Formats: sequence, structure tokens, C-alpha cells
Amino acid sequence: MKTSFLHAAILIAAFASPTLAQVFGPKELSEQSKQCIACHKEHSPALYQQWGQSKHFRGNIGCFECHTANVGEPDAYTHYGQTIAILVTPKDCARCHSHEVEEFSASRHSKAARILGSLDNVLAEVVEGNHGMKSAAHPQGVSASAVNGCWQCHGAEVKVLPEGKIDPTTWPNSGIGRINPDGSEGSCMACHARHSFSAAQARYPDTCGKCHLGPDHPQKEIYEESKHGANFFANVNHMNLDNAKWIVGEDYFNAPTCATCHMSATRKQPVTHDVGMRISWNNRPELSIRPEVADAKMGLPGGKVPWQTRRANMTDVCINCHDAQWVGNFYIQYDSLIELYNTKFGQPGKDLYALAKPLLSPVQFSNQLDWTWYEIWHHEGRRARHGASMMAPDYTHWHGMYEVSKKFYSEYIPELGALVDKFRIDQDPTKVKAAEALKLKLDEVLGTENHKWFVGKMDPEEAARRQKAIDEFKERYEKKKE
Amino acid sequence: MKTSFLHAAILIAAFASPTLAQVFGPKELSEQSKQCIACHKEHSPALYQQWGQSKHFRGNIGCFECHTANVGEPDAYTHYGQTIAILVTPKDCARCHSHEVEEFSASRHSKAARILGSLDNVLAEVVEGNHGMKSAAHPQGVSASAVNGCWQCHGAEVKVLPEGKIDPTTWPNSGIGRINPDGSEGSCMACHARHSFSAAQARYPDTCGKCHLGPDHPQKEIYEESKHGANFFANVNHMNLDNAKWIVGEDYFNAPTCATCHMSATRKQPVTHDVGMRISWNNRPELSIRPEVADAKMGLPGGKVPWQTRRANMTDVCINCHDAQWVGNFYIQYDSLIELYNTKFGQPGKDLYALAKPLLSPVQFSNQLDWTWYEIWHHEGRRARHGASMMAPDYTHWHGMYEVSKKFYSEYIPELGALVDKFRIDQDPTKVKAAEALKLKLDEVLGTENHKWFVGKMDPEEAARRQKAIDEFKERYEKKKE
Amino acid sequence: MKTSFLHAAILIAAFASPTLAQVFGPKELSEQSKQCIACHKEHSPALYQQWGQSKHFRGNIGCFECHTANVGEPDAYTHYGQTIAILVTPKDCARCHSHEVEEFSASRHSKAARILGSLDNVLAEVVEGNHGMKSAAHPQGVSASAVNGCWQCHGAEVKVLPEGKIDPTTWPNSGIGRINPDGSEGSCMACHARHSFSAAQARYPDTCGKCHLGPDHPQKEIYEESKHGANFFANVNHMNLDNAKWIVGEDYFNAPTCATCHMSATRKQPVTHDVGMRISWNNRPELSIRPEVADAKMGLPGGKVPWQTRRANMTDVCINCHDAQWVGNFYIQYDSLIELYNTKFGQPGKDLYALAKPLLSPVQFSNQLDWTWYEIWHHEGRRARHGASMMAPDYTHWHGMYEVSKKFYSEYIPELGALVDKFRIDQDPTKVKAAEALKLKLDEVLGTENHKWFVGKMDPEEAARRQKAIDEFKERYEKKKE
Repeated sequence: MKTSFLHAAILIAAFASPTLAQVFGPKELSEQSKQCIACHKEHSPALYQQWGQSKHFRGNIGCFECHTANVGEPDAYTHYGQTIAILVTPKDCARCHSHEVEEFSASRHSKAARILGSLDNVLAEVVEGNHGMKSAAHPQGVSASAVNGCWQCHGAEVKVLPEGKIDPTTWPNSGIGRINPDGSEGSCMACHARHSFSAAQARYPDTCGKCHLGPDHPQKEIYEESKHGANFFANVNHMNLDNAKWIVGEDYFNAPTCATCHMSATRKQPVTHDVGMRISWNNRPELSIRPEVADAKMGLPGGKVPWQTRRANMTDVCINCHDAQWVGNFYIQYDSLIELYNTKFGQPGKDLYALAKPLLSPVQFSNQLDWTWYEIWHHEGRRARHGASMMAPDYTHWHGMYEVSKKFYSEYIPELGALVDKFRIDQDPTKVKAAEALKLKLDEVLGTENHKWFVGKMDPEEAARRQKAIDEFKERYEKKKE
Repeated sequence: MKTSFLHAAILIAAFASPTLAQVFGPKELSEQSKQCIACHKEHSPALYQQWGQSKHFRGNIGCFECHTANVGEPDAYTHYGQTIAILVTPKDCARCHSHEVEEFSASRHSKAARILGSLDNVLAEVVEGNHGMKSAAHPQGVSASAVNGCWQCHGAEVKVLPEGKIDPTTWPNSGIGRINPDGSEGSCMACHARHSFSAAQARYPDTCGKCHLGPDHPQKEIYEESKHGANFFANVNHMNLDNAKWIVGEDYFNAPTCATCHMSATRKQPVTHDVGMRISWNNRPELSIRPEVADAKMGLPGGKVPWQTRRANMTDVCINCHDAQWVGNFYIQYDSLIELYNTKFGQPGKDLYALAKPLLSPVQFSNQLDWTWYEIWHHEGRRARHGASMMAPDYTHWHGMYEVSKKFYSEYIPELGALVDKFRIDQDPTKVKAAEALKLKLDEVLGTENHKWFVGKMDPEEAARRQKAIDEFKERYEKKKE
Repeated sequence: MKTSFLHAAILIAAFASPTLAQVFGPKELSEQSKQCIACHKEHSPALYQQWGQSKHFRGNIGCFECHTANVGEPDAYTHYGQTIAILVTPKDCARCHSHEVEEFSASRHSKAARILGSLDNVLAEVVEGNHGMKSAAHPQGVSASAVNGCWQCHGAEVKVLPEGKIDPTTWPNSGIGRINPDGSEGSCMACHARHSFSAAQARYPDTCGKCHLGPDHPQKEIYEESKHGANFFANVNHMNLDNAKWIVGEDYFNAPTCATCHMSATRKQPVTHDVGMRISWNNRPELSIRPEVADAKMGLPGGKVPWQTRRANMTDVCINCHDAQWVGNFYIQYDSLIELYNTKFGQPGKDLYALAKPLLSPVQFSNQLDWTWYEIWHHEGRRARHGASMMAPDYTHWHGMYEVSKKFYSEYIPELGALVDKFRIDQDPTKVKAAEALKLKLDEVLGTENHKWFVGKMDPEEAARRQKAIDEFKERYEKKKE
């Protein structure tokens, strides 16, 4: 984390050879890095080779240039006469890559560790976990489920021990929102893995899939199902992934990766490390909201970037392969799915849960209903919304809306009904009142156009119309057969 | 959708240069296509490049040759002085590829949109959905869950608006059974994605995986587990996927893709675009049936192609890598799994459901039992059967028969029992009678060889035989240890 | 299975040309193999080509060299004048590859068919299956679910019919623990698929994924999520997978495959075909145990190889890319997750199940509780433990500990409570006593530090500390926003 040395080196290099062919960085590898390599070439050969494959090698940026530290920094220690740190943080990377770090620091990615104080942490720390993992930095213990689970994607708050060692509860950790000893947030290595720092690697969808997969945010699986994914994997050798300039429509054209749509350059937009700038819905919460609303809550600059701007940014990507009507129609389809989820399941589900609260144990996740509602919005509801956002119909429907509606009608509604039945005759009048309020809302919800089919009250007209459509459809085919 | 122009062009080309080296198609790119390109090269560069990679480019088949339309056609519109249509339908493709379209049109693939009038649509339209997505073509509204879900694989009924625009509820859509404004069924682009129309892409398993995946028909996941899939991915660079002639055993030999077994050429069979012609079970319904029975129901020519012919077709593929005894034995194994599922779970499950019907609300999916039975056959039962068809033991067993039996014994049977208990004492004598009939059948099922273990009535002989086998097995190993 | 012929051939070859350039194996293809090829080249062209791609081809090892058999051997038969067997067993392979077969035979892999006498077989044979698949070798019938499911990974006990035919219940089968007619255990083809016997193929992760995937041991999915997997797929063309010498850090360095860590050579360790020698936890049982304990139970030589040795072996792999502190800390994290699972869920869950047994039907899987506990440890608990072992946080947490805790608190505990309630008032005093014992244990478990949150008894101090941590965390961020 020493800034002076490298800046000086680069300036010297720049002044010493002012030709156009000048390599960025020092003219040759530093003596310190040569010393590191003398041993590590033998002891960590794959690591050495990865570096040898990187642009850093070609730019004479060696071990020391990144791992250097000032005496007195929390994680600095002396290693064969050199003061270094194990952790290389965004602050370190910013010495050369300040623009990228700045963009990243404005993104939600960089704040991913804030989840540590949220609901998910109750799950990992209390419900799943205990205080069993004790360490110097955490003498009262932390949950091994948080350490091995949440923190590996969201990032740990890294704790340094004497002599530059790092507390084992907090590292190895390359979570994208890691809170570093120098106060910086994030870990560039979350995506630019290991010592080759390959752009091709970062552009490869599996890199994002390290965290964006699974029951609650299966973006990787969704991409793989989508035509985008199918085309990518069938054409991976034509994707020109390791080209420095990687502009869609110029350098490749067979398929987009995650990076293409969310980060990489188009003919009109530069690369961005703020991944939210082309996203027009935030599908994380119980109800989908606009990204500027979510960003404002976190005090991010994105709070001032309306979704329309972001959608225009994304459209500028889409347009390379699809015509404007296609893109516009796609967004109408996607928006309509969000609207359906929000109005039919999200809002009523949330309202009913709020009314059920007084009838539940205040200890979250000790009630069956807590799990039921949580999975409707957090797992299945997200799958449906994410599926629609990237055109993976199986995730929209079978893994998504099918599961949402199954759980809503066959678990959530009956569980709410059972609560009403139980507490309507309770001795505590506040419970009785709460049960009545819940009952009222339940009846209201089940009486709406959205839900009345469930209680056998579909409009006769609607039922007739459905029957007619089915009959007409059949007849059309019968005719064809003849 | 104009036929005259292109036919003329091809004929002229054919007559004008009758040499053997004659390229199929026009001698040079049409003036109209040149005009399209002048703009689209700039506005849709990736699309232009995809075309530049295609055989169409080499054959001088440009934008206009496929997108041309006649004035008066429903989706024709004037675009910079040319009459064109956005949608290119099988009818359009058939101008050059009539043989392929003919085969495809005889297949179940081309009829995939017929599901619109079926059970699955109740799920997406009523249970999951509502009428919230209103449009010019659907002023009464359609379900966003159908639009973003079902229709994306099965195909939408495309509705054209004035001036050639397409209603956003019905497009973007490349569902394989799409119902086009010109009356044709299907979308060649479902598999021959985007403008490169690459054969390699269509032969790549992920192309089929766009639709054939997920809880109810995980063929993609099954293939990936199977040795076929493992061998393919490990040898993808030896698969010669972009060879024009792609005959198994001649042009490649490391592994088959979906296309190899179901569509592509062998030394004895030509390519076919009717994917059912090598399949000897239809595993879609509650009980597996023979494909000719399923085809006959839809009035397809396949109704006259018995499963034995289809199995012989498939065997002709298998035989390139496996010997005849291997293939014969495999089919005995596969058939036995179908038989097990059909007789132990499929038929009794179906019979019990029919008897439970009078005790249920007539509104489908408003009863817990509806979901339970549906998932047994539609999700888990299919996974087991598909898993066995392609030798993916984890899908046959853990994702398949294990889940079938778990749900059958721990949910379905108890739910049926509860129905009996509830309605045996009902005031309505018809309900009592129905409950007694259900009880009788339930007892009968649980008394069969297949199920009596569950009620603790395994034959003592059988129990003893099982114990003896276990003991012998253990003893054999104990001996070896010494 | 004839040993004399080939040994002779090799010896002759060796003596005849004692130069250093001598190819291992016969000097030219045997007359017998030439005869085989004359037909099979035509009848099984892909099989012939696979062989043509193999090292066997280059070493003049043809069909006959491996398929040769002695008259009188159980599966020998005469085929166009030659005595051969279809099955090539480890005993056959050992004629040239004795070292590999020896290592393999000491491994748990080779004993995989022993599961046939275990719990899982009850599932496949009784619960899922029946005796419907009758054959010459199994006239009383076997379960198609075992044949198509379990046996395909674990291995069948191969039964030979007259004239060298193999009973269709037992083959096709390449399960890794296959019990062969010659008494040998295993199938080399489980990993070295088909006739190319490619090392690259065996090193490819999907090869292991044939069996190591799915709800109960998703190692394939875990690898794909991990950075190891992401780096592999993004760098597959740099992996040098078909190099004979394949030493990590020398021949490749971008990522490890399953083989790299568990089997392949490092600079200090040779390749091993005993896959357990670098594994320091056996995560298969209800509670994780040390591998030497598990090996001792099976009478394997591994019973004498302590986990510390195995961990040192693995560390020797890790160290090529990671420094020693990183590796040490990783193991602290991994061990802590095992400890958490074992103490919070594994041991109490097991104890409670044992106490519930007297209150259950003795017929396993006829009680709901059987399924519930089984999935907690066998499916979800394993996923969590395997996920942590390979750093796939989504499997550790969402697919693992989240599901473990959800099922434990929302199903297992309530089901146990219901058992207590039901049998406390039973007429049978032994049942009452058992119910009371279960109740006592249940109260004890729910009163521990691990579980008391569930009954609303979190320490006030702990609750306050949690609240304080959350507040501090929020405040820190609020400050930053200003």
C-alpha cells in the first residue's frame, strides 16, 4: 500500500523514453521483484507462471510493485528484508487503475459486505450457525456458516493479526465487497482471478457465476439456458475474448457474455466497472424497484441515475444484434412479468405477512410462515424476475412463477388461514383483533380478479371465454388434420 | 413471403451458368440487399457480421432474399422503399429448404404451440397469471407468465399490427411451434439462431437445452451427466462440428450430441428434421406411451411409424460406437424402468387421482392433491424416465425414482387417506360413496406386491431372502479382507 | 483374461529390440487384431476410430490384446474362430497397467458396489422398485431402479450367460466398483471412457461428474461454482490436458481439475489411482469422520494412513498456487464448518432419531420422519460439507446449511414434537416411556446454546451484542455517506 515508489517509477519510465512505443510501467523488473521471484518461482510455480502470462509481466510490474507496503500499515510485515502485505486491495490497484477502482467503488458490488448487518446474516449466524469458530480476532466466535458461506461472496471484514498475519475467519476471502484493513471496499480479485489478471477470464460468464447462481439468484443458470448462453458456448472460440479492445459488433458478434451487456464497451459506451448502469429493475427485494431508488438508499451516486438512462445504455448494447422494435417489445414483455409478480404475489404477500406478524412468535424463522414467505419472494420470485430479464423461459415459468404460485396457494394461504382459525378464538383480545384484520385482508386478496379463481369464483364470462378459446384452438387444428 | 422473386433468381442463375462449379443461389448479391446492408452494417453490426459468417453470404442470399414480402401480406410494410416483413417463417425458408421444412412440419416440434389450449396453459394463465398484459392485439389482456414463459419455447400465435409492426405480447418469439401470420407453424430460428444459421451451433447440445431443461424435462442436464455429454465436452475440439457432411463414424467419433442421435446423418440414414423418428417411448404423459400413439392423436404422419422402426433407426446410430448386444441390453434396461414407473406409480397414481376427483374442489390446482399428483408424473416421473433413456443414473434415481417414491408414500398416499377419513362421514351420501370407492382402491394398491412393504406386509420369504442376500454379500467381503 | 499371450508378446518385443527407442508393446499389430479390425472398421467405425486415436494404437495394442480370453473362463466365447470376452476387467488391464490397478484396488472407488447391501439399496429395491425386471440370471427379478440407477455408478455384479452373453440386468455397466466374473472389482472404463482411453478425457472434470453430482453429492456443481472451476472453463485451451507428463506448475497453471487435486502428479507426488489419499474428511456419513476410520471399516490399506498425511499430500498440491498461510487458513475455515454441522445438527439429529425409533413403524421410509432425517444428513448436510471443502459458498450456504436448518427447525423438530405429543398418552407404557425420553432429549437440545434462539431464549447479552454490532455497522456506513 505504498504509493510513492511506484508512481515515481512510472514517471521516471515515462520521462526517460518518451517515444510512442513506450511500454507503460517501469523499464525493467525491480530488484525487489526479482528477489521475490527467485524463491517463488520454485515454491509457487503456478502462481509465478500465471504472472508470466499476464500483462503485468509485459509491463514489468512484479510481485513487489503490488504487494509493497509501508512500515506501520496494519498488515505490513517484513519478509526477507522487504516490507510487504499479503492483501492487495482496490486502493493498491488504484495506483495504476484509478479509473476502474473509482467506477467500482460507486457500484453496489463494492458495498456487498453491508449485508453483514442484514437479514441474511441472522440466517447464517443464528439459525444455521453458532459461535463455534473462535479466533484471535473473534474471541467470542463467529459462525462457520457465515465464514464459508456469505462472506465468500459478499466479502469479510478482514482482520489483521500481529506480524501481518490475517485472521483465518476473515481470509482466504475474495468477496467482492470485502472490507480491507486500509478502509477500502472490495476485492478486484473477485473477478480478475489469481495472478494472470486475465481480461478474457473476467469476460467469461463463469467468473460472474462464482456468486450469481443458486436458488435465490440463478443468473448463471439463466444465462446458460438463454440463447445468449447457448450461442456463447457454441462459439467460444470465435469470441476473441482476449482482445484488448473488445467491442461488440467490432471484435466479436456471435454472442454476448455477462460482461458484454453489463460492463463492456460498445461503439458508443466505454467499459464500466459499475455494473448497475445498464439495469432498469432491481429485482432483489420483495417487490422489484427501480435501481435509482435502491442506490439512493445506500448513498451511492447511482441514486441520481434514473432507470430510463440505464435502459437506454442497455438498449445501445442490444441494438448491435437486434432491431429497435425487437428490443422495445422485449422490454414490454419483461416489464409485464415484473408487474405481474409485484401485483399478484409481491404486494399482497407482503401485506399479508405484515398482518400475520402479531400472531407469530417474534423470533424470525421460528415460524413456518417465515420460511414460506421468505422463499416466495427471495428464492422463487427472484428466479421468475431474473429469468424474464434474460429470456430464460424455464426459469421464468417452471423454476419461477410456477413455484411462486404453488407455494402461495398450497402453503402460504392455508398457513395464513390456519393462523386466523387459531387466533380468532384466542383469549387475548388483541390477538383476536389481529386475526380478524388478517382474515379481512385474506378475503379481500382472494376476492380480487387475480385470485378469485382459487375460491371457485372465476367470472362465468371469463370461464366461458377460456372455454371458447380452447374450443376454437382445437377446432382449428382438427380442420388442418382433415 | 414473396416466392416469385427468389425462384426466378435461382432459375436464372442455374440456367445462366450450367457448370458443375456453379454456386447455388444468385450470382451476386441483389441490389435490394446491398441497400439493406448499407445501413444495417452500421446500425446492427453484429447482425451484419453474423450474416457475413454464414453460408447465405457465400451463396449471395442477403437480407432481402429472406425478408422480402408481397404488398398485402399481413406483416408486409414499406421500409426505405422496399416491401419487407420482419418475420421470416418456415414458409419463407421453404423457398430454398423445402425438404427440411417438410420434415419439420411433420414433427411434434412444429405443433408445440398446441399446448396453448392445454393444462399447462391453465397454470400460466390462471394460476400464475392474470390479464394484466394488455396490447392492441390482446385488448382483454394475456398473462405475462405465458408470454415470458410457455410461449418462448412452445411458440406464440404471432399477431401483426398495422404497418407491419408485431404485437409485443407475441414477439420477440422464436418458440419452435410458433404460429405465423402466413399460417405456417414453427420457427427455424429456434435452433438456427440469429443470422449465421450455423450448422455447428444447431448441433451443439446447448441449442436444444434452450427448452429441454428444468424440473420437468431435464434432457440437457441428463445429457451433461451421461458419458455422452462428458465425452462431448472433453472432446469438443475434435467434433468437427462445422463440417458440412457430418456423419458419425466418418466425420467425428468421440461423442454424440443431441443432434447425432436424434437428427443427424449416419452412414445409412440421412439427416432428418423430424426429431421423433428415432424415439421409441413418448415419456411426456402420465404413463409412457408409444410415439405412434401420440403422433396419431395429433394427426401427424408419425402415427403410421411404429416404435420398432424408430428403435431400429436409433440402433443404427448406437451401433457406430456400441456392439449389438450392448445396444439390445441397454434397451432392456430402459424398457424395464418405463415398465416399473408405469406399473408401480403411473397407473395406480392415475387411478387413485380419478377416484379422488369427486372429493376435490373442481377447480384444478386449488387442491393440494392436484399439485402432488401433477409433480409425481409431470416432474419427477419424467425425470426418471428421461434419465433412463439417456443413461444418467443420478436423474433416473435421485432426481427421479427417489423423488417419485418419496412424494408417493410421504405425501400422496397420506393425502388420499385424509380425504377418505374426511368424507367417509360426510353428510352427502355421494361423497361417502366416493370416499369408500377411493378407500377400496387405496387398500387394493397398498396390498399389491409393489406397495405392501409400506404397510409392513412384505412377504416373510422376501424379507428373509433380502436378509440372506445382505448377509452373503457381507460375508463375501469379510472373507476377502482376511 | 488370458495372461500368457500378451506377456509373451511384450517380452519378445522387449528382447528383440533392446534399443532405447523401443516402443512399449508388440512390434506390430497381431494377426488376430487385424482380423477384428477388418470387420469392425466397417461395423463399428467410431469405435475403430477411437482406438485409432489412442496410445494403444501407437503401441500396437489392438482389440485382441485386451479382449482375449481363455477357453473355460466364464465369459469366454468363440467369435469368428477367436476366443474372446466382451468385458475387459481391471485384471485384464493389469497385465500392462499393474501399478495403476493396484492403487485403484486399494481405493474406496473399487469397493463402490458394496453399497448393494446397504440402505440405499432398500430405497432402490423396495421403496422405488420391485421384482419386475426378470432375466436368466435374476429369475426372481431385480429392481429396474437399481439397474438403471445405483448400479450405473456403483457397479453391478456382472452375471454371464451361456455362450459369453451377459445378462442384461448387469450390463451395460461401467460402474466404478463393478464386480466382474473374474472376481476383480472395478471398471477402468468408468473414467477412461470408450476405446480412446484418453488421459485428457479422464482429467476433464465432467468425467468425475458422471457420478459425483446431484442432490446428495454435487461435487461437479460445486467445482463449477468454485474459482477452480471458473478458471478451468475459461482456460481450458491452456490446460495442456493431453500432455503425457501433466504436473501442476510445470505443464499447466491456470486451474486445477478434479484430477489435479485428488490424483495427478505434483513436483513431489506421483499420480495416484487411490483417490482418497489427499482427503482429510469423509463427509459421507451422518457425521463427518476421518478417512482412516472409514477405510479401516472396509479393511482397506488406507486404514493406516492418517488424515494428517492426506492433508499434507493435498497441501503439496495447493501450494503450487497458494501460499502456506492461505492454505492453513482455508483448512481452519473448512474444519470449522464440519465442526458446526457435526455438533449443531449431525449429532443431535442422530441422537433424536435413535430415540424416536421406538415410536416409529419399524419399516424404514414408511414414516415421514425417516425421509426428513435422511435428507438432512444425506442430501443437505453433505452439500454443505462438500461445498465448504471446495469453496463453493452457494453450496455451503444456500444449497447446504440453509436447507439443513430449514428442515431441522421447520420439519424435524415439529415432527419429533408431534411424536412426543401422540405417544405420551399412549396405552402402551413402553411407548410412553420412549416418548418421555425423546421429550427430555428434545428439551435438552433446544436448551443448548446452539438452539435456544428457536424457543425464544437467546441470551439477552447475546441479543444485545447482536443489536450493537448491527447498529455500529450501520453507523459506520452512515458516516461514510455524509
